Amino acid sequence: MNRGIFITMEGPDGSGKSTQIELLKEYLEGAGYDVLITREPGGNRISEAIREIILNSEYTEMSPVTEMMLYASARAQLIAEVIGPAIESGKAVISDRFVDSSLVYQGMARGLGVETVYEINKVAIGEYMPQLTIMLDLPAEVGISRKKDQKELDRMELESLEFHKKVAAGYREMAQRFPERIKSIDATLPIEEIYGIIKGSVEGLLGSK
Amino acid sequence: MNRGIFITMEGPDGSGKSTQIELLKEYLEGAGYDVLITREPGGNRISEAIREIILNSEYTEMSPVTEMMLYASARAQLIAEVIGPAIESGKAVISDRFVDSSLVYQGMARGLGVETVYEINKVAIGEYMPQLTIMLDLPAEVGISRKKDQKELDRMELESLEFHKKVAAGYREMAQRFPERIKSIDATLPIEEIYGIIKGSVEGLLGSK
Repeated sequence: MNRGIFITMEGPDGSGKSTQIELLKEYLEGAGYDVLITREPGGNRISEAIREIILNSEYTEMSPVTEMMLYASARAQLIAEVIGPAIESGKAVISDRFVDSSLVYQGMARGLGVETVYEINKVAIGEYMPQLTIMLDLPAEVGISRKKDQKELDRMELESLEFHKKVAAGYREMAQRFPERIKSIDATLPIEEIYGIIKGSVEGLLGSK
Repeated sequence: MNRGIFITMEGPDGSGKSTQIELLKEYLEGAGYDVLITREPGGNRISEAIREIILNSEYTEMSPVTEMMLYASARAQLIAEVIGPAIESGKAVISDRFVDSSLVYQGMARGLGVETVYEINKVAIGEYMPQLTIMLDLPAEVGISRKKDQKELDRMELESLEFHKKVAAGYREMAQRFPERIKSIDATLPIEEIYGIIKGSVEGLLGSK
């Protein structure tokens, strides 16, 4: 059986990841793939339990290292239980956030350093690095204004504008650091145009289904 | 203000750690220290929430990497919130289990490798490595028979005899690997004799209180 493909979608809150994931799912199904969508942190009962700790807005005392390790633990379980088996069985996996979120949020915005966070996450991920990462690039102010209609914001969403500016800058730096893996797209473009660019990036990955 | 001291107590379940921790606490108080006892995983509300996930006996699908990362995350929060501040304020901290438990349980018994687990944990611990580790050495069979009266065993305690034999052998290997930090003591000795050996090991750490 052919190995499947693994694509991750990254970008600040409010950048339109969910919409593009749905469009990409239909495109991949049209190309003959069984498609599995996962979200981070979460995607299985252990990772969802970890997610509840990470996003609990009462836990303002959480240390940056704890936060990084919790994301890595949820990711390790998602790989072991869901992403790894799906790829081995030939599926196309799309993950809403993955390792780049940790590199950006904990490595850059929290200041732990990209190298440290990458080393920890290489242990969590093992052989399942994404083949392609779509990065929706959006100025922090725009992302926040798109999100503020939500009734309840979680611990990460409640961070300051300064924090979210570091996140947006961090994503741009990651795109420069991993140019062979990451495709950065201006998230203020029309939805159809973004979708077109994503299709163009994904085509090369598709096997003969 | 003088920096405090940091002592950890290790050994298989049933090796008598709790008894010796109480005796050591009295001894350190007699030497003029404020003593703080912590347990791993746990010791603060975030680490206790992580502990509930780690020890949940339903989570038989938990991957070894996830388990290691969860222990490291609980440890990082305990350091940030409890152990670090206590040591900085001059207290004597005794932790019931610490990094050596991860090296032995996840590194050796789960097979992740001591080096990998040590690298992850160095990030979690930072500058707060214990100055002295008391390791109560007990054959696996004896530890299990001492524990089996408990009504409910957690996910780790429910592991096989073979697993617990790896743990006991792992502790012995750690004692050889870190001879300057770890003091290994035969846990089948009388309580008073073990206590005497521990006092002898701790004396050199005590400041002039």
